[in-house]
Amino acid sequence: MLILALDLLDKRRALEIAEITSEYIDMIKVNYPLVLSAGIEIISELSEIKPVIADFKIADIPYISSLIADIAFKKGAKAVIVHGFVGENTVKSVLDVAKKYGREVYLVIELTSESLILEMQSDEIIRIALKLGCHGIIAPATKPERIKRAREIARNIKIFSPGVGIQGGEVESVLNAGADGIIVGRSIYNSKDPARIAREFRDRIRGIRLGY
Amino acid sequence: MLILALDLLDKRRALEIAEITSEYIDMIKVNYPLVLSAGIEIISELSEIKPVIADFKIADIPYISSLIADIAFKKGAKAVIVHGFVGENTVKSVLDVAKKYGREVYLVIELTSESLILEMQSDEIIRIALKLGCHGIIAPATKPERIKRAREIARNIKIFSPGVGIQGGEVESVLNAGADGIIVGRSIYNSKDPARIAREFRDRIRGIRLGY
Repeated sequence: MLILALDLLDKRRALEIAEITSEYIDMIKVNYPLVLSAGIEIISELSEIKPVIADFKIADIPYISSLIADIAFKKGAKAVIVHGFVGENTVKSVLDVAKKYGREVYLVIELTSESLILEMQSDEIIRIALKLGCHGIIAPATKPERIKRAREIARNIKIFSPGVGIQGGEVESVLNAGADGIIVGRSIYNSKDPARIAREFRDRIRGIRLGY
Repeated sequence: MLILALDLLDKRRALEIAEITSEYIDMIKVNYPLVLSAGIEIISELSEIKPVIADFKIADIPYISSLIADIAFKKGAKAVIVHGFVGENTVKSVLDVAKKYGREVYLVIELTSESLILEMQSDEIIRIALKLGCHGIIAPATKPERIKRAREIARNIKIFSPGVGIQGGEVESVLNAGADGIIVGRSIYNSKDPARIAREFRDRIRGIRLGY
């Protein structure tokens, strides 16, 4: 599975990149820079092209977190991303909203950049995801050993990995470690030919899945 | 210092509450639910009433975090709130943007709700705030012992405490623990007379400061 991280600021360019790569990608991930610049309606507009993941890395108290999730789902997001370190109560508050809309919740177990999240906390986050019934987890492509560990603990949960390309993660090691999908941003939208690069990523993913 | 947490969804109502309480409050804190509903321009509009803290609890990789901060500052925010647990690189990336605009950065050391952030990680976050030159930290009113601890480690940094009122924090214990300002939301904007409640909070803060 190939997820396009659409971290642009310009609405027209974002929609254009989504259109020309749509044939090769499975989902579109949006983050605050685009949503704040373009307005929340961008989620609805992109959802007409591909299912949208609102990568809001929700990390607040349950009350605020459920409000943020509600706005994203109301605009058509298929999933929201929540920071697992905030603990069960916040995750549960977002899951409750997701259930109302029939949508999904993915937990970040660790960032691709260095952070203060410890290994034992990542494990605890995976356990929370399983216990509460989250639909996926986000594990860094730059740390394939964390993906492997996540797959060991959580056999049946979707694992998506950002950080492939510019940030140093490699498609092969990420998929071999057990990820279901890779999230690629700058390597695609900053290239001269985004459609070609997206197709190449798609083909590499397929190739690895088929074992050649 | 009294900071109004303006966690409403309706733009007109938010501006109205800001106006009628402006005489008693020192700053306005906005979070994503309002900004996503009303649009990013709400930061500029509220900044004409009182200095605005963009409580975006930024918790992403440096690249994305600096983009989010840039948008908030460009719209006139006086400060942005960053999750300290994301570590030095992200905090530094936001501080660099703040410097460009002559604005401020506050770090969350712990949430008012339970989370997986450990005590030793809170201490580490305070040390990062001091080392990198952040302007303030956000410590939970519901855990005055954490505020006291923060004040011990960081003698000269501003400490702001959310969670007073509905969430259970008490003005007296928060200020006596060493906080410089309290952040109050629902107790004010959900009351029948927001101006009166804001004035009462302001008066209590003044009374405690003067020792009666």
